[in-house]
Amino acid sequence: MNKIITIGREFGSGGREFGRRLAEGLGIEYYDKEIIAKIAKRADLAEDYVQEVVENRPMPLFPMTIGATFAAVGVYYPMMMEENVYAAQTEVLQELAEKSDCVIVGRCADYILKSYNPYRFFVYADMPSRIERCMKRASADEKISEKDMKKKIKSIDENRAKYYEYYTSQEWGARQNYDIFINTSGRDIAKLAEDFVHMLK
Amino acid sequence: MNKIITIGREFGSGGREFGRRLAEGLGIEYYDKEIIAKIAKRADLAEDYVQEVVENRPMPLFPMTIGATFAAVGVYYPMMMEENVYAAQTEVLQELAEKSDCVIVGRCADYILKSYNPYRFFVYADMPSRIERCMKRASADEKISEKDMKKKIKSIDENRAKYYEYYTSQEWGARQNYDIFINTSGRDIAKLAEDFVHMLK
Repeated sequence: MNKIITIGREFGSGGREFGRRLAEGLGIEYYDKEIIAKIAKRADLAEDYVQEVVENRPMPLFPMTIGATFAAVGVYYPMMMEENVYAAQTEVLQELAEKSDCVIVGRCADYILKSYNPYRFFVYADMPSRIERCMKRASADEKISEKDMKKKIKSIDENRAKYYEYYTSQEWGARQNYDIFINTSGRDIAKLAEDFVHMLK
Repeated sequence: MNKIITIGREFGSGGREFGRRLAEGLGIEYYDKEIIAKIAKRADLAEDYVQEVVENRPMPLFPMTIGATFAAVGVYYPMMMEENVYAAQTEVLQELAEKSDCVIVGRCADYILKSYNPYRFFVYADMPSRIERCMKRASADEKISEKDMKKKIKSIDENRAKYYEYYTSQEWGARQNYDIFINTSGRDIAKLAEDFVHMLK
């Protein structure tokens, strides 16, 4: 069975960088945003829409732009689309897991790939570290205040938690669902990843 | 500054074994139960009493056996003794941290030794693993049912949480108070310790 490493992470904690460096160090595949494109293709939906569903919420408002075309399906249509996204996500992740050893960031991979006995990380940090990391990452023309960044971080994590809990019936970030939790506050992600590469080799 | 590693742990999770093996692997001091004797000596109290205070509760009932001797001090006497225990514990831990690199299990060491920037582990496991570990460890003549063992585990952890929270004003086992959480469910403690020895070297 392939070695599967899954990374749950708080927004701004450096979990994505940690995962990428882990994959590099181990010389194995790394999957993150590209999964969205694969899911969209599979479910025959727009990439932007899939992105919004998997990143932001399990139960969106009725997308008004879809309009009359789907009126017959009624209010349940968005829910059906969400379920399609999740079904496609499940298929895509299982195919990736079958293909080779890999690191997968987010996407309920720890739950969906349970039967592969994945090594499940959860990466977190205190709020000041997360704000600092996000402010550095924000492009110069984004111009967002620290206060608004804090709001954004909280809101994204709330949505991640809701999405995860809706599809897995498990609590996002709860101890029993992960093997190792890493607090990256004030720590060097490159060094942390290097340490865990050795552990997982 | 000496390298200080602190281990918070759920009862039955193997945290103590993890700490001992970590210390062995790193070739540094390991402190656990012997701290009790040091605290007792410092606070001029019986070892059994100190053991009960630091293991079981921050706010004991009035110890009836003390009786009339201390009647004048009134109901606050036990609380004063508890505070003595905590003060002695603080002194003892600080002396140990000054002496050499070390691993310290429990005793609010992560909080008391904050200024030493310790590497703070929290070791946990699911209930079935903890019951199994404790049943194996129980001596043949202890004869305790799995149901009673579960009760015992829960009660000890509740007391650890109360003690920790009373003295640190922090939540025991909460993410922000530790650097790494390790889920030992179904894992080999010796292997886990070996992995982290390399990381901490």
